[in-house]
Amino acid sequence: MIKKYCFGNVFKTESVVKNINVSTDKVPYFNIETKDDEIVLNYNLDSNDAIYGLGEVIRGINKRGWIYKSLCEDAFPVHESRTGSYAAHNFLIVSGVKTFGVYFDTPTAITYDIAFTDIDLMTIKACKDFDLYIVEGKDELDIVKQFREIIGQSYIPPFFAFGFAQSRWGYKCKEDLLRIANDYEKCNMPLDMINIDIDCMDDYKDFTFNDTFDDAKAIFEGLKERGIRVVPIVDAAIKKDDTYDVYNDCLANKACCVDKDGNPYVVGVWPGDSLLPDYLSANGREWFGAQYKRLLDLGIEAFWNDMNEPSLFYSRHRINEAFTLAGESANKNLSLQEFWNVTGAISALPNNIEDYKEFYHNVDGKLVCHYDVHNLYGYNMVRSASEYFKKYNPKKRYLIYSRSSFIGSHRYGGIWTGDNASWWSQLLLEVSQLPGLNMCGFIYSGADLGGFGESSTEDLMIRWLQFGIFVPLFRNHSSFYTRLQEFCYLKRKEIYANLLTVRYALVPYLYNAYINAVYNNSMLFTPLSFIYKNDSRVTDIQDQLMFGNDIMLAPIYTQNTKGRYVYLPERMLEVRMTSSSKYETRVLEKGDHFIEVPFDEIVFFVKEGSVIPVSHAKKNIADINYNDLYAIRFNNNDNEVELYQEIDDEIVLKKVSLK
Amino acid sequence: MIKKYCFGNVFKTESVVKNINVSTDKVPYFNIETKDDEIVLNYNLDSNDAIYGLGEVIRGINKRGWIYKSLCEDAFPVHESRTGSYAAHNFLIVSGVKTFGVYFDTPTAITYDIAFTDIDLMTIKACKDFDLYIVEGKDELDIVKQFREIIGQSYIPPFFAFGFAQSRWGYKCKEDLLRIANDYEKCNMPLDMINIDIDCMDDYKDFTFNDTFDDAKAIFEGLKERGIRVVPIVDAAIKKDDTYDVYNDCLANKACCVDKDGNPYVVGVWPGDSLLPDYLSANGREWFGAQYKRLLDLGIEAFWNDMNEPSLFYSRHRINEAFTLAGESANKNLSLQEFWNVTGAISALPNNIEDYKEFYHNVDGKLVCHYDVHNLYGYNMVRSASEYFKKYNPKKRYLIYSRSSFIGSHRYGGIWTGDNASWWSQLLLEVSQLPGLNMCGFIYSGADLGGFGESSTEDLMIRWLQFGIFVPLFRNHSSFYTRLQEFCYLKRKEIYANLLTVRYALVPYLYNAYINAVYNNSMLFTPLSFIYKNDSRVTDIQDQLMFGNDIMLAPIYTQNTKGRYVYLPERMLEVRMTSSSKYETRVLEKGDHFIEVPFDEIVFFVKEGSVIPVSHAKKNIADINYNDLYAIRFNNNDNEVELYQEIDDEIVLKKVSLK
Repeated sequence: MIKKYCFGNVFKTESVVKNINVSTDKVPYFNIETKDDEIVLNYNLDSNDAIYGLGEVIRGINKRGWIYKSLCEDAFPVHESRTGSYAAHNFLIVSGVKTFGVYFDTPTAITYDIAFTDIDLMTIKACKDFDLYIVEGKDELDIVKQFREIIGQSYIPPFFAFGFAQSRWGYKCKEDLLRIANDYEKCNMPLDMINIDIDCMDDYKDFTFNDTFDDAKAIFEGLKERGIRVVPIVDAAIKKDDTYDVYNDCLANKACCVDKDGNPYVVGVWPGDSLLPDYLSANGREWFGAQYKRLLDLGIEAFWNDMNEPSLFYSRHRINEAFTLAGESANKNLSLQEFWNVTGAISALPNNIEDYKEFYHNVDGKLVCHYDVHNLYGYNMVRSASEYFKKYNPKKRYLIYSRSSFIGSHRYGGIWTGDNASWWSQLLLEVSQLPGLNMCGFIYSGADLGGFGESSTEDLMIRWLQFGIFVPLFRNHSSFYTRLQEFCYLKRKEIYANLLTVRYALVPYLYNAYINAVYNNSMLFTPLSFIYKNDSRVTDIQDQLMFGNDIMLAPIYTQNTKGRYVYLPERMLEVRMTSSSKYETRVLEKGDHFIEVPFDEIVFFVKEGSVIPVSHAKKNIADINYNDLYAIRFNNNDNEVELYQEIDDEIVLKKVSLK
Repeated sequence: MIKKYCFGNVFKTESVVKNINVSTDKVPYFNIETKDDEIVLNYNLDSNDAIYGLGEVIRGINKRGWIYKSLCEDAFPVHESRTGSYAAHNFLIVSGVKTFGVYFDTPTAITYDIAFTDIDLMTIKACKDFDLYIVEGKDELDIVKQFREIIGQSYIPPFFAFGFAQSRWGYKCKEDLLRIANDYEKCNMPLDMINIDIDCMDDYKDFTFNDTFDDAKAIFEGLKERGIRVVPIVDAAIKKDDTYDVYNDCLANKACCVDKDGNPYVVGVWPGDSLLPDYLSANGREWFGAQYKRLLDLGIEAFWNDMNEPSLFYSRHRINEAFTLAGESANKNLSLQEFWNVTGAISALPNNIEDYKEFYHNVDGKLVCHYDVHNLYGYNMVRSASEYFKKYNPKKRYLIYSRSSFIGSHRYGGIWTGDNASWWSQLLLEVSQLPGLNMCGFIYSGADLGGFGESSTEDLMIRWLQFGIFVPLFRNHSSFYTRLQEFCYLKRKEIYANLLTVRYALVPYLYNAYINAVYNNSMLFTPLSFIYKNDSRVTDIQDQLMFGNDIMLAPIYTQNTKGRYVYLPERMLEVRMTSSSKYETRVLEKGDHFIEVPFDEIVFFVKEGSVIPVSHAKKNIADINYNDLYAIRFNNNDNEVELYQEIDDEIVLKKVSLK
């Protein structure tokens, strides 16, 4: 049962698509205080209460013991003290003495102090305008299901999106793309997508390619014939350049954010001075979405949206103030405080919250301050593309995923978890994030495999690959200043070539589980504590996940170890795969096990009574043959299973024979 | 057996105190290449080889899989991508197919690429001048012992240094110190030391106190009568201020570093423009050490040395260049690259390596470029104090510990592991650092309990305390911008009060183990893999330690967990202490165990045949009564043990009866 309570008069986020009557009852569970400029909700925590959800934020599956702020930010570098993330996902479940879900529908900042200030208290502080949904159900999964029902069906990408993508901020020209394709091929490593990052644009201008792409359509078609799709980046802002037609068109269509006087607001991003399209206005969305025609006409079927928190390097006026102060301070005998005033003014240039308060959206003819609707920016950027795709080709699925997101955008596209780092802790972070994201409707998701920022090591690449093969968005991505981490450029080539095929082996299971999670409003990655309700040992387990209904994962996420402890909440079949066609199994009893995981094996655990459909594919998504699947079984002799498949852009549930 | 090989002509670091003849044999183990400006040593790694040592650097006990740079730096924030640390500890052990120790005696930068660039290779790059020591022995402990013998006996602090210290960057006046003393007392929490940070100085001037300390000697005496010693900070640099006698005296004595023309070199640190005392010159050391008289005469017996990498906020000329560039760039239509040129120039001001190349030490009448001897700066700062203490009172032990260090300074003082963060990962980092530090001779050491930077949570404070009670330097320290983390200001007061007494319960064991480690050149914290040589399971264990000879530790370092897995390499007695007088035990068999550790218990494991002497002390170090010890035993019925004790400033080995 879901009850809706209204506080003030909130801007309509459209995150909830089901009409729910407003309750006039007293809000249960919380002790609510109304202050001058905010509403404070307190909940007394029992020492065993756990808090789940909040989507992309950091820390473990249980969010207890930290303070989180929902205000989309360019959160690089992600580290243990971050309170925010690239996204704002305001759904959580309190699980314990009382179990219920809470969704705060508000487009601006909100903080969750979960036993941070007071170890026995959760304090949520919101501005005065929000809709509050309280979800009651028989358990966590039921609460998730009810919540997901009211926010609408999650995005389903095209089937090829479950293949492997190679990306790097650093590919500069068509030769780079062809080199990657060739080098993966030479190494017998499967590859379905190559991402194109900002250097391939002409001067960071959205929807353009630089001169090396003299025959862009032919290049992309040539790659597609080899089974490889390109995935160009589309950044949030538009370069200010009156020789750039998109810029001129943006101005002509009044499609950008404006200052208080109605003049286009200028910010600095990758292209230098730029405009921010007004994705919150129907006009701005429609205008921006239509720009995708330039790429779609080249045969492109996949896109990523970046910098859309929005991330700002500076606002024009603040730069001038800070630099002037610095100039005035040169050659003076500064005190340390005066020195810091200068360096502080300069370090405050990027993503300054005061800038967010200085520009406006035009929503139905009314100017709305950006800060008040900040968290909807990335959401509506993705929506603008998604709505145009439907016009361009109503029958086709396109791949799109975004850095920033908000509950609601899960209907329009996927997300990656933003610019992470090549840290062992961030492999574990991905394990924690996935269930929280699934709770909020984001099923097509994943972290940059191997880590984006900082240099990765080869052992981290292997361990991350051993987990990444299970994750829907399966992309190796890194930054230009880091060591190369393409699998084809690392040393253990044979291991990568084999482990990558295990992904393709499991895609039939993954895709079926994915569609089930979407259609049933269930989770693809589920904490063990949601399922094994009567086993007190699982409540603490934050480094194992159920993957679909039949498989349990227990990834290795520490360096210089041959194995790890795994708790089996029931008797399971341990499966060790070394390629799409080779595996070994043994039955393990319920309880604690120390499991060795060599670099060249993918280890997972299958529940009793399950049959896992497996493909022999070795090359790419197109190599998966549903007429030639085999089974990994644990006390289930079915020779036929029903699997969701994508056939001619349609999703069909179809019986499949297993060898 | 230790062999010494000389490359070039290295500056004498005095880290090795034993005379060893130079070998003219070919250096074993390494493949050595001489390049234009460096010497490169390669060692092929077997997949099971482990690398131990390198002192304070990050990552696990096994250092394999990262690149480390020995060039002392203000390493805040410490995170997974740091290559350097506050210290330079150039001793490591290769353990595996071949097992041997390596010490690079060089005062400047050196890098250790340990399976980072190539997963099968260790590559060490050094400048052309260094002494190389190769240590061969029957196992890792024997190699450590031989190495420690040549670097001289480790520092032994006074007995009170094993008590608990409360510190915070933020205590501003005498009232703050008295408040801490009173509030700990009110909460019945033991306390032996309060650290005094920079705000208590007069305008950041070393050896001064601000106006609130109108009666400094009386204040300190008053606290000492209550069992509490103050521990003032001494920063590396001296404020440039001609009303400050220490500054004038420094100039008059020509005791500071100079530029290439011999003029005092001016840098910016906490006091603003400052001079860097020339600790590398005998004259500078003698002059600076003598300044301690000002504090010693106030009855102070304990000190900490900070900022002595040295950390520099800016050099005077670089500030002017950067600020001028910024001023010239204001109100221009900058490209993004031009924008970054400005912000880059400003962010490059602190700790700029080019600055290290611009100033000089005067060593025996010769100017030596600082960069070439950089790693010796903190080492010789501590040495200058230590040498003066011997003059001031030859019979007395003083407590001194430093942020920066080098092998050699282990003879003069302790170290803390520098400004860490309130991150769960840094609790585990401390566990990893301690054995590496012990290998390099640093026995009196510890991390800032609860974390220095960033805000801590109460559960992290509890878990860190549960480990911290075993660590010699037992100090809760935090930064001014973080939430208060003094135990007396947190909520679970009863737990802290009780757990703190467990420290005092175990000080007789800790002190005895400490002195043994110093006298025997052995380790206080030992990796299990050094001891249980024939158990393949222990080689991977990086989160358990032997503590002395009789106790094994397995701390909890993850959030929201009731327990952890522990591997017992032999049958052990599990001890659960809730205060200095209360404990429970049970025998656990060799093998894997899941151990629950509630917040209010200290859990450790005792080897069979051991007897642990325990005190009932509840208040402070002076409350430990060696005539009233009791025993925690596991199949050992001895009623008398020999324990090292400090009696009248002497260390004596004495028989003690146990109840």
